Amino acid sequence: VARLTVIGSGMMGSALCVPLADRGHDVRLVGTPLDVEIVRSLQSTGRHPRLDLALPPSVRCAPVEALGDAAADADAFILGVSSAGVHWAAEALAPWLVERPRPVLLLSKGLELAPAGVRVLSDVFADDVARGTAGRGGPCEPVAVCGPCIAGELARRVPTLVVFSGRDVDAARLFAGWLETDYYHPRLSSDVVGVQVCAALKNAYAMGVGIGAGLHARHAEAAGAAPTGLGAEALTDVPVRPGSVAMHNYEAAVFARAVVEMVSIVSALGGTPATAWGLAGAGDLNVTCNGGRTGRFGALLGRGYGAREARQLMAGATLECLEVLDVLERSLDARQLGALTRRDLPLLARLIDLGLHDARREVQLAELFTE
Amino acid sequence: VARLTVIGSGMMGSALCVPLADRGHDVRLVGTPLDVEIVRSLQSTGRHPRLDLALPPSVRCAPVEALGDAAADADAFILGVSSAGVHWAAEALAPWLVERPRPVLLLSKGLELAPAGVRVLSDVFADDVARGTAGRGGPCEPVAVCGPCIAGELARRVPTLVVFSGRDVDAARLFAGWLETDYYHPRLSSDVVGVQVCAALKNAYAMGVGIGAGLHARHAEAAGAAPTGLGAEALTDVPVRPGSVAMHNYEAAVFARAVVEMVSIVSALGGTPATAWGLAGAGDLNVTCNGGRTGRFGALLGRGYGAREARQLMAGATLECLEVLDVLERSLDARQLGALTRRDLPLLARLIDLGLHDARREVQLAELFTE
Repeated sequence: VARLTVIGSGMMGSALCVPLADRGHDVRLVGTPLDVEIVRSLQSTGRHPRLDLALPPSVRCAPVEALGDAAADADAFILGVSSAGVHWAAEALAPWLVERPRPVLLLSKGLELAPAGVRVLSDVFADDVARGTAGRGGPCEPVAVCGPCIAGELARRVPTLVVFSGRDVDAARLFAGWLETDYYHPRLSSDVVGVQVCAALKNAYAMGVGIGAGLHARHAEAAGAAPTGLGAEALTDVPVRPGSVAMHNYEAAVFARAVVEMVSIVSALGGTPATAWGLAGAGDLNVTCNGGRTGRFGALLGRGYGAREARQLMAGATLECLEVLDVLERSLDARQLGALTRRDLPLLARLIDLGLHDARREVQLAELFTE
Repeated sequence: VARLTVIGSGMMGSALCVPLADRGHDVRLVGTPLDVEIVRSLQSTGRHPRLDLALPPSVRCAPVEALGDAAADADAFILGVSSAGVHWAAEALAPWLVERPRPVLLLSKGLELAPAGVRVLSDVFADDVARGTAGRGGPCEPVAVCGPCIAGELARRVPTLVVFSGRDVDAARLFAGWLETDYYHPRLSSDVVGVQVCAALKNAYAMGVGIGAGLHARHAEAAGAAPTGLGAEALTDVPVRPGSVAMHNYEAAVFARAVVEMVSIVSALGGTPATAWGLAGAGDLNVTCNGGRTGRFGALLGRGYGAREARQLMAGATLECLEVLDVLERSLDARQLGALTRRDLPLLARLIDLGLHDARREVQLAELFTE
């Protein structure tokens, strides 16, 4: 058993505490400055308000002020912060990594565009730590967790198969050994870039698949069905005819095109093409199409709302899909996706128009496979 | 406009009459000997009982006895028969193809194992016709339709993107030109073997993904939820928690493994690997996981029924997934999947055990990605 400090008590960081606790580790869950209310709930009732369940009683939860205590004697760190929070976490952990180098597991997903090109978050974190420690303590190469994993399911011990990947293979093996249970199965990949590129891309493409549910709702209403609400639960809760007649043909064509474009982008960024049709690519895209914020945003676009209105209707929600689309658009403009242009990526180009530029026409299937 | 004779008035053959009629073609829909009741309904009320809608009034429907009249002056044939019906159709059409060679579009999906190896249905049909005509009239190379297409959606003009592929490229172009509408978009592929192998495999693998819904229902009931019925509609209608918490992580891992194994099998049979992660592979698998008989059968297995009980509960339903699994099992035993063995295809091996040999354990994720 190990002393493990999880930083970030959002859905995913907290869910990962379940297999850690089941394996008997000494788990400390430390909130970020954004997690004040979650920490208060966990400390007073033991329940996680967003996961809607009680974490195992052995998990000790603390606010961000206790980070020092929880970091000092930790054997390793697990980061469950947002993609933007990765910089904060690198700064916060740098002093502790100087004192004693320790492995880091990164649950965050996203991409950044640096002057030298597109960077995956494990490299962003490693760079930040190197700057923060001025090289003292040696390099810190975190291990990224990718692949299909809905946090609420992991927290309920639903069987889950994920991918661990990092430039420090021993660290990846160490975390996999600490976390393997009879329901949580980490598998190692050497494609550090590819798995993380897929983890980011799937959000953008799941938005595209989500458009289908919105189109279906719009057509059903036009044909006389009772209007579907716009609330979080109602949005993807559109009526489906017996025989599963909805807009599934449309969704499947978008899904297939998404995998094809993920293969191109992973290759262009130096990853392994096969990653894009495996667990981290097609698998994670599949799970992300089962509801969630990204799908709801896509559904609003499919119903005919522009991106601005759709964002207003989802007030307050972080839309990872738009963050990823923004990086991809700037990367295309800066010619940082290898030789790929908008012409090679017709689905992505349309999603950029819809998500970032308030275009009002849905994805037209005839554009997607032109050959 | 063309004179087109559709043979087989099941769901898919009848659905294809919709874009044909919208394009103004002269469409004759001829039932097979199995379609007596459908033809009676179409002739008396204009409604298709299984699609639950009226076909366009310009489509003329006739029983199998009228095949001669409908064949004599047809410009081309479209076969909407079951995979087993392909042999019957080749025999029935041979005299007309001797008289005047005409292009054939094949909606049937499946694989056969011949002494020389695994055969796709377009080649099976071509062989049968060559035997039936003794070479008179020249070769008949049908065009196969693959890719994601739920018939009930096509019949309702839901946007649909499919793949046409045949050894006679001019025939494929001809059919695509006749069928393209603003909602039905055929795309050409030169991978005649790969697209049809995927069209067959997706049924077997969708059974595997369907197990997840059954597992979820079983666990939900064990946790105190109201029992879900076993009827056709209720089976996949299991309660899902807010936050889309069900068995999606499990389903996504099975889905990803399915695509990986489809890539291997397509390659082993001489197809193009990319077909397996495009429209005909990942796309068709995606759409097939949206309910249907295959998914319901998988869900019954996930609930703990053995294959024999599950088949009884679905009395009368044709289970394409079991036909395909049977061909694949025999192909593995005869070493006709290239160098692939059960060890290379752990998901397929498990699905063969579950579907054909009444095994009682569900797919264990830890078996799927072993590296």
